[in-house]
Amino acid sequence: MAPGITAEKKTEDEQSSKDNLIHLSNPHLEKMKDDILYHFALGTGTHDFPALFGDVKFVCVGGSPSRMKAFITYIAEELGLGSVGADYPNICAGTDRYAMYKVGPILSVSHGMGIPSIAIMLHELIKLLYHSKCSNVTIIRIGTSGGIGLEPGSVVITSQSVDATFKPQFEQVILGKTVIRSTNLDDQLAKELMQCSKEINEFNTVIGNTMCTLDFYEGQARLDGAICLYAEEEKLQYLKAAYDAGVRNIEMESSVFAAICNLSGVRAAVVCVTLLNRLEGDQISSSHDVLVEYQQRPQKLVGHFIKKCLGKV
Amino acid sequence: MAPGITAEKKTEDEQSSKDNLIHLSNPHLEKMKDDILYHFALGTGTHDFPALFGDVKFVCVGGSPSRMKAFITYIAEELGLGSVGADYPNICAGTDRYAMYKVGPILSVSHGMGIPSIAIMLHELIKLLYHSKCSNVTIIRIGTSGGIGLEPGSVVITSQSVDATFKPQFEQVILGKTVIRSTNLDDQLAKELMQCSKEINEFNTVIGNTMCTLDFYEGQARLDGAICLYAEEEKLQYLKAAYDAGVRNIEMESSVFAAICNLSGVRAAVVCVTLLNRLEGDQISSSHDVLVEYQQRPQKLVGHFIKKCLGKV
Repeated sequence: MAPGITAEKKTEDEQSSKDNLIHLSNPHLEKMKDDILYHFALGTGTHDFPALFGDVKFVCVGGSPSRMKAFITYIAEELGLGSVGADYPNICAGTDRYAMYKVGPILSVSHGMGIPSIAIMLHELIKLLYHSKCSNVTIIRIGTSGGIGLEPGSVVITSQSVDATFKPQFEQVILGKTVIRSTNLDDQLAKELMQCSKEINEFNTVIGNTMCTLDFYEGQARLDGAICLYAEEEKLQYLKAAYDAGVRNIEMESSVFAAICNLSGVRAAVVCVTLLNRLEGDQISSSHDVLVEYQQRPQKLVGHFIKKCLGKV
Repeated sequence: MAPGITAEKKTEDEQSSKDNLIHLSNPHLEKMKDDILYHFALGTGTHDFPALFGDVKFVCVGGSPSRMKAFITYIAEELGLGSVGADYPNICAGTDRYAMYKVGPILSVSHGMGIPSIAIMLHELIKLLYHSKCSNVTIIRIGTSGGIGLEPGSVVITSQSVDATFKPQFEQVILGKTVIRSTNLDDQLAKELMQCSKEINEFNTVIGNTMCTLDFYEGQARLDGAICLYAEEEKLQYLKAAYDAGVRNIEMESSVFAAICNLSGVRAAVVCVTLLNRLEGDQISSSHDVLVEYQQRPQKLVGHFIKKCLGKV
């Protein structure tokens, strides 16, 4: 091999490392001519991904489509991008599975509720970022959750995502066999987000473990589902054990979110507001207006973080 | 106790048995003054459930909100209920988690994608039917799926819902411990639906096992996700083993659907169209129009069944 080629290769590697490109853990994709992202109603054969998404640096994801639309409107105004009162079109208008909005380097995508729903979205999102040749992407989930031992409205930045037995792992079933994956999140990013919360100083924020469950009612020890065969004492015992294991909130997406972002080499964080304190009850009974204000808190925190990253604070 | 009271009690029991009321497996609910169905944005303190839903006899559920709106429009026209071109309001307009539509005795509800998402909806649906004092309710999931060894567009009526190891069971994690639940569905209802398909005679329909997975990509042995660490031969081996175990289609909701309906004493069925033959590929690449027509097939089949039940065929 000529020295020149070796040098070029080396430079590319250095560039890749410096640019932190998306890592695709799937050798089969290279053999495909086109790639249809079915649940986004987008495809490489029909859409110019690098032109549409090549400049994306921040992806914010959350359960509710209307909340993710509200976020793109909020961040556009905060960053002075787009005009006041502008309507941002849903990039996934061809389907009602997910909604996607973009302004400048920010993409906002809904993921529905639960591990399977966010997993479908993340597989297609990672492929979208890869096909678009994006680099240095940060993905943050801004969501809602039940708190443990926290005043309602507190925000939790996830230190570790743990399962229903408080282990920091995600069980993925592949070809009928269970594979254990790491749910590590970026420590440095969590600290940067905590610093942002201190700077805006509007609500209580903690760094803590987040328990990720497959069910909202029995899976989170609620007493108010259609099915509940345990006693209130058993519920409280379980939630207190979770608290002792460092769990400060419970939601339904963080484990697979961490696992997929890890495997794809993407810097990721989870920032969720707590809608209630589960040691006090199960029903989400705050007024609509209070809940809407709570749900804006992760948006404000992450909005401030993005502004700082872009040198606009 | 006076004989009169005993007799009244007996008559009530006979009536309950004959009327097949909703069975709530949760003694805690009786102690609650109000019940907020948070993800429906409905509550017993704010809505008159018996007046709104007391006449419901058929509940059809499916992943996509727009498909469930299309179904209520279709069934209203088929049954001669409501006016032509009528717009049916979303009963859950206060939230974007689920959409719900009603015409006459039929309720149509979306459930999103995956076991956790449909489980939240079903807990709240079962409570809604219970609070509404509904009786003799049939719940049918009309969905989409990947077929195994079937021509695309074929409809599968689920005989048994099986897990990723082909066992007819659902694992529910409660207070950190795994509980195994039955995924039995109503045999007689499946046969009645098969008879309906023969009567309309427009597309291929089979009764077969349905595999329910927690993931669309690796969990269903696809080669086109962001992550895939197995070979094509391993994929085909797994899908062929599923076929040999009687699996004719794969989707992501049937197991918990069967488990919750079982525990609630509700007659239930799963009717899904297959969008592709997984032995031939992974990507859903048929044209939009073809896919729309496929998705109408479970609606037509279940529409015919409801018409027959109501004596309108």
